[in-house]
Amino acid sequence: MQLPRKSFLILPLLYVAVAPAPAAAQTAADAMFAVNNTWMLVATLLVFMMHLGFAFLEAGLTQSKNTVNILFKNVSIIAIGLLTYAIVGFNLMYPGEFSMGGFFGFAGFGIGTDAAGLTSEYSEGYTYWTDFIFQAMFAATAATIVSGAVAERIKLASFLVFATLYVGLVYPLVGSWKWGGGWLDEMGFYDFAGSTLVHSVGGWAAVAGVFLLGPRLGKYINGRIHPIPGHSLPLAAAGMFLLWFGWFGFNGGSVLSADPGLVSLVFVTTCLAASAGIIGAMITTWTVQKHPDLSMVLNGALAGLVGITAGADVVSVMSAVIIGAVAGVLVVFSVIFIDRIKMDDPVGAISVHLTCGIWGTLAVGIFSADHSFLTQLIGVLAYGAFAFTAAFLIFSVIKATMGLRVSEEDERRGLDLSEHNMEAYPDYQIMITR
Amino acid sequence: MQLPRKSFLILPLLYVAVAPAPAAAQTAADAMFAVNNTWMLVATLLVFMMHLGFAFLEAGLTQSKNTVNILFKNVSIIAIGLLTYAIVGFNLMYPGEFSMGGFFGFAGFGIGTDAAGLTSEYSEGYTYWTDFIFQAMFAATAATIVSGAVAERIKLASFLVFATLYVGLVYPLVGSWKWGGGWLDEMGFYDFAGSTLVHSVGGWAAVAGVFLLGPRLGKYINGRIHPIPGHSLPLAAAGMFLLWFGWFGFNGGSVLSADPGLVSLVFVTTCLAASAGIIGAMITTWTVQKHPDLSMVLNGALAGLVGITAGADVVSVMSAVIIGAVAGVLVVFSVIFIDRIKMDDPVGAISVHLTCGIWGTLAVGIFSADHSFLTQLIGVLAYGAFAFTAAFLIFSVIKATMGLRVSEEDERRGLDLSEHNMEAYPDYQIMITR
Amino acid sequence: MQLPRKSFLILPLLYVAVAPAPAAAQTAADAMFAVNNTWMLVATLLVFMMHLGFAFLEAGLTQSKNTVNILFKNVSIIAIGLLTYAIVGFNLMYPGEFSMGGFFGFAGFGIGTDAAGLTSEYSEGYTYWTDFIFQAMFAATAATIVSGAVAERIKLASFLVFATLYVGLVYPLVGSWKWGGGWLDEMGFYDFAGSTLVHSVGGWAAVAGVFLLGPRLGKYINGRIHPIPGHSLPLAAAGMFLLWFGWFGFNGGSVLSADPGLVSLVFVTTCLAASAGIIGAMITTWTVQKHPDLSMVLNGALAGLVGITAGADVVSVMSAVIIGAVAGVLVVFSVIFIDRIKMDDPVGAISVHLTCGIWGTLAVGIFSADHSFLTQLIGVLAYGAFAFTAAFLIFSVIKATMGLRVSEEDERRGLDLSEHNMEAYPDYQIMITR
Repeated sequence: MQLPRKSFLILPLLYVAVAPAPAAAQTAADAMFAVNNTWMLVATLLVFMMHLGFAFLEAGLTQSKNTVNILFKNVSIIAIGLLTYAIVGFNLMYPGEFSMGGFFGFAGFGIGTDAAGLTSEYSEGYTYWTDFIFQAMFAATAATIVSGAVAERIKLASFLVFATLYVGLVYPLVGSWKWGGGWLDEMGFYDFAGSTLVHSVGGWAAVAGVFLLGPRLGKYINGRIHPIPGHSLPLAAAGMFLLWFGWFGFNGGSVLSADPGLVSLVFVTTCLAASAGIIGAMITTWTVQKHPDLSMVLNGALAGLVGITAGADVVSVMSAVIIGAVAGVLVVFSVIFIDRIKMDDPVGAISVHLTCGIWGTLAVGIFSADHSFLTQLIGVLAYGAFAFTAAFLIFSVIKATMGLRVSEEDERRGLDLSEHNMEAYPDYQIMITR
Repeated sequence: MQLPRKSFLILPLLYVAVAPAPAAAQTAADAMFAVNNTWMLVATLLVFMMHLGFAFLEAGLTQSKNTVNILFKNVSIIAIGLLTYAIVGFNLMYPGEFSMGGFFGFAGFGIGTDAAGLTSEYSEGYTYWTDFIFQAMFAATAATIVSGAVAERIKLASFLVFATLYVGLVYPLVGSWKWGGGWLDEMGFYDFAGSTLVHSVGGWAAVAGVFLLGPRLGKYINGRIHPIPGHSLPLAAAGMFLLWFGWFGFNGGSVLSADPGLVSLVFVTTCLAASAGIIGAMITTWTVQKHPDLSMVLNGALAGLVGITAGADVVSVMSAVIIGAVAGVLVVFSVIFIDRIKMDDPVGAISVHLTCGIWGTLAVGIFSADHSFLTQLIGVLAYGAFAFTAAFLIFSVIKATMGLRVSEEDERRGLDLSEHNMEAYPDYQIMITR
Repeated sequence: MQLPRKSFLILPLLYVAVAPAPAAAQTAADAMFAVNNTWMLVATLLVFMMHLGFAFLEAGLTQSKNTVNILFKNVSIIAIGLLTYAIVGFNLMYPGEFSMGGFFGFAGFGIGTDAAGLTSEYSEGYTYWTDFIFQAMFAATAATIVSGAVAERIKLASFLVFATLYVGLVYPLVGSWKWGGGWLDEMGFYDFAGSTLVHSVGGWAAVAGVFLLGPRLGKYINGRIHPIPGHSLPLAAAGMFLLWFGWFGFNGGSVLSADPGLVSLVFVTTCLAASAGIIGAMITTWTVQKHPDLSMVLNGALAGLVGITAGADVVSVMSAVIIGAVAGVLVVFSVIFIDRIKMDDPVGAISVHLTCGIWGTLAVGIFSADHSFLTQLIGVLAYGAFAFTAAFLIFSVIKATMGLRVSEEDERRGLDLSEHNMEAYPDYQIMITR
């Protein structure tokens, strides 16, 4: 923040170091590159806010005795996600020349510092650094999705080890199949911003985790379902709003430039799908459950957002509304179904991210004439098979070695006291435990 | 999010579909169009965040037994607002050629998908999609303003029906008088970003709703005022911050381009008016009420923001400070006055949005030499007469048919249990009801 | 928000008033100027959100009986900061031609309205208004840092007087030494975005305030430390996320343009330093305190952010990771040390902002070959000597006149009731006081 009104002596020296000096004659291409890059950076910071959104949503929909634990996981994941992506993930996901049949490739450890790559010669839309940080923010969200489903009973250290391996190795490897130009990309599979590559990949790991952990104590007794209400609906609602806010960058940034027509179309399809998801879930829950359930409506918005993510740039506005509305209806029945088969997912992560991730990916094959339903289905199945297997294996090894679940006593006391020796709301919790 | 490091084979195909291909020779006009459009999209997502701001402010300033209900309304309104605006509102507000005397016009149902309209040929500042989504975000805020004033006693379904009609029909119809190029626009009435078109229009509906509903139980007993404190000041304060945050887009985006001089001037006038509103309300409440009241200071910031909204681009910085300070003083006395005449407005929405909306609109006639005080007054009165009458009629029909107010028993239990069968903070509320 | 679809008759008239008319032939330089200015405005609104971040962090880490007071201070400070910066601060910090030995200069009262200054002739990166509002948002943060350290015992009026003088006079005066082109700038001292100029300057005032106030009642009894836990860890965690979010603008905007290479590099160094700070603090607290402490991890993220702020644009990515990790370790030991010497800093502000601000400033001399460790040390000492002395004097005069600390009884009841006659959570606090 140097000398804005006096001189520009210092800054030009810096420009020389890392970027071409802003010479007198700037071209239209320079300006366009700056717009594109700026939008991608704004998209990056919007995706960053999704981590606060997930933290709020998960904390709000679970009990107050596990809130510190949830927050701790969400803060840790972003650090783990960004650092592992810098060390290994980015180069696994975008392997460049070296690739084994479009299934696996690796460009080496660490992120580059080649000065040429930092400028407009790297791509038309952004610098190398922008590419890295935008993709890294995406990567971190995949593990966060799992966090909510396994909440209130998983050991902290075990979860952190899982998250490190999943976001550092599995997410980028399968990501490379499509976004890294791998075999599914060559087959014509389409997933604009990650209904499958991000949301389903997270959702499959949630299924594996929930299956291996088993339900929370007291959730299913003698075959009956005992709902365990979340401790703060304001936190949960704020989480939804922040996730939608972040989705402007998640989908809008996936255009990979500030292209006016495409980015604005994506804003419209994204917002209308989320709105239709709200209305779809509202009508369904009001009809089926006889009262308008706030947490279902929040999930309806997220369902619409996940649903539109695969095709936000290739479907019409009317299709976006239908995709969102169907997702909003689907998520309510999915939550009920998942509960009936005694898969205990405290926040509905599997229904939102997996059920609607699959729906959104298939919807591209239905609503876009340029894409094949069959290819979309192959993609869904391939990702499901690999992601579920990988997550199941990692969780199983952790279960066999470190253990996956806290003791019954620790679960009853809450993970905040047993794992962290802290309470989320000490002023009030003193009273409750009395 | 396709192939950032390998090739650009896929994306150009998309570009063909919805936008001109980014040919090698981009012009300065292309770059300028991209900047303008990007800023308008950023403004859109900032205005989106105002919905979380309203949700927090309203939930924070009301009782915890009605929190789920408030959140449900705020989540629903954004869906209703965006969808009705897509179906009918946008074409009512900007009717194009067809207009009946500048009072009413309608361009048809649904939003266009004409490919030509999506590009820079649509306008200098943004695409058709950007225009729609920015305006749609605005529309949804008008109904949200009402939500706070009628809180803690209105039936959920009745409110949703009102919001649908008001945001779908009334808001765009009166909006067309000025922003759609209607009769008030031709007369020279000025309202930059909506002190009257958004805030007063919402505020008049709040007056009608509060009048027809009557006060909350226990608010006025034997002629004495019994304050009902809001349940969470942190939520209320966060609401103010998020609304201010959104106002950068609400006012900054109303420039309708990224014009450097105008947008930055609007940022300065907006922020200094909000600051002066805080100081004005702080001094007033500290002097009149003998202690510094946080909720009044929060309303002072919002009062300054509403006040500057009509003229943020045409008044000087010093005028902005005066407008904000006056608004900050006004809002305190308005809240006291509204309470004295037994209009029960739990969050002070009438004082913030109507009183200061009127003040801000008239202030344009005082502080800008290019605008007439009389014309501004005519605009204020015309909007007041129509918006109040329309809201009164809609609310009256709803009252006569569906009913407007919950039963006494339901109000005592709280709308969360009676309408939603949920609690906002189950861990704690168990104790309170014991 | 005028006539988007019909004509552009009105807006061009405005353009004439404050900016050059957008003629048919726009140049690449015009477009680049618009990009730069737009990014600086986005950075401004990101820095604005840091105020909500500070409010949440401070409220979350203190007791619920002082929450209204904390929120009131944070809302007031932004108003005080922006208004004093408009009246005097901006012209003290960037004095232009007139300067006394690079130590003190002043360009007069008020902010300019010269039309020429509002256009691209003012600078290459932004308009005069953009310059002012971005710098003003920065200024307000310096006083906010103090707020947390002196919380739960300082008189409200006394704090507001201190904040007014410190942000209005001291911050801009010392800021001019470097960013205003003063003596330290001429010496080659480097502080990119304010590890010293903002964070240490705030931190030194925190030291003076904490020293003169003494510890909270019950914190140190018979030489033993009695921790006073914060009342809401979700608020505290949200505060950290919002501060990080704001830091994208704090550091990213300090590039003073949208230069693609520099801004994206700054995003990467900033995020990786924060991530490394989290991991550093996590490992340290898990090892030293035997359990993973959430508040320490939150402080670890902030420590990494403060640490990288001085050199975010001149260090390599690997250096950023090291700087962040060291900051994350440092902050844990600093919190323990500050507590041992009985300096009662409820939120760890001194450790985060001062300890890591010093570390970050010195790190530029270690990790960047272009900067001298000795010069960085001279800067650190000069700022420390002046800022601490100034803060000590102001606080001492206030203590001798208005008094600095509330009565014992008021502190026991909480500042919310004694200073504001309000409660943050009335629904619950009724029960607690029973």
